[in-house]
Amino acid sequence: MATDRAAGRPRDRRTHEAIVSATEEMIMLHGYAGTSINAIASRAGVGKDAIYRRWPGKPELVYEALFARVDTGPVPDTGTLAGDVAQLTQALVDEFATPAATAALPGLLADFAADPALRTRLRSAFLAPARARMVEIFDRAGARGEIAGTAQVDLILDTLAGAVFFHVGLMGEPRTAELAAQLADIVTTGIGTR
Amino acid sequence: MATDRAAGRPRDRRTHEAIVSATEEMIMLHGYAGTSINAIASRAGVGKDAIYRRWPGKPELVYEALFARVDTGPVPDTGTLAGDVAQLTQALVDEFATPAATAALPGLLADFAADPALRTRLRSAFLAPARARMVEIFDRAGARGEIAGTAQVDLILDTLAGAVFFHVGLMGEPRTAELAAQLADIVTTGIGTR
Repeated sequence: MATDRAAGRPRDRRTHEAIVSATEEMIMLHGYAGTSINAIASRAGVGKDAIYRRWPGKPELVYEALFARVDTGPVPDTGTLAGDVAQLTQALVDEFATPAATAALPGLLADFAADPALRTRLRSAFLAPARARMVEIFDRAGARGEIAGTAQVDLILDTLAGAVFFHVGLMGEPRTAELAAQLADIVTTGIGTR
Repeated sequence: MATDRAAGRPRDRRTHEAIVSATEEMIMLHGYAGTSINAIASRAGVGKDAIYRRWPGKPELVYEALFARVDTGPVPDTGTLAGDVAQLTQALVDEFATPAATAALPGLLADFAADPALRTRLRSAFLAPARARMVEIFDRAGARGEIAGTAQVDLILDTLAGAVFFHVGLMGEPRTAELAAQLADIVTTGIGTR
């Protein structure tokens, strides 16, 4: 969503990084409700407008700081659908299991629930990069003949993100080494016999 | 969780029902944070101790009032694994899509996140009835030769509940007639070719 704004002059990237780091630190120290744009700006050593030029508000900034890591780096390309989905799921697991994510999630969800315009942007902006990565994974799987019919990208993305949120974020289950692969198997292979 | 406490004398059942109804109404009117045990007791026409005899506190009461419907009624028995899982998922969809659930979820999640003892009881008490229903569904599927290997009941339950929460509760996607069957298919059949 705002990742492309980090490109450009080195000073812009440093400012972007300083703001994102300060956001994560403030969430860890004070939680979501206790973190303000003012406080983030202070900690990052920037003015408030440096933040508002880049993000519309707190939910967008916190989302990018804590939940957009799954959108960066090369798109998984392991050679199999299950392998690619497992890697994408691992990135989700790594994000949801951080203390900052656990601290931020209820407040972030409350802001989304209270603001219909924000919810609308969830699909079109927040989740667009993750969706694009999944589309690429599914295109390659389709070319290999690994995907049955038309994959419902949004529903599958919601299923994986929801599973990780519920299992790790909410239930507090441990991040075992096998978890991502197990979730990927449930979704790609299914639990039924063939 | 507290469903068996509703059994017994008719007056006990009426009290139980009055408290549960009042809870749902208060959540609809005032949201989760704005709903107190005092206010629920008032609206239900009971004393606070009538509530505390039955539930340890607000999260448990709200959870039962809004999210335990999936635990009641006969266990799905359609003859196929996919059919049974679709019915269980439909009950989840019906619950998460209510305005009261949407209103309560962020605050309920915040209480769970803030209280480790409450989180521990999530698995052992709150979700135990839903888990038992899924175990019964899997036992029958196993006897029919429909289940591959050992089904990871908790992970699959978390996947379905998480998918519904994320897709319907958070993203606000519509409750189409096909949604539950589509989610059940993802989990039982998988998206990969065979």
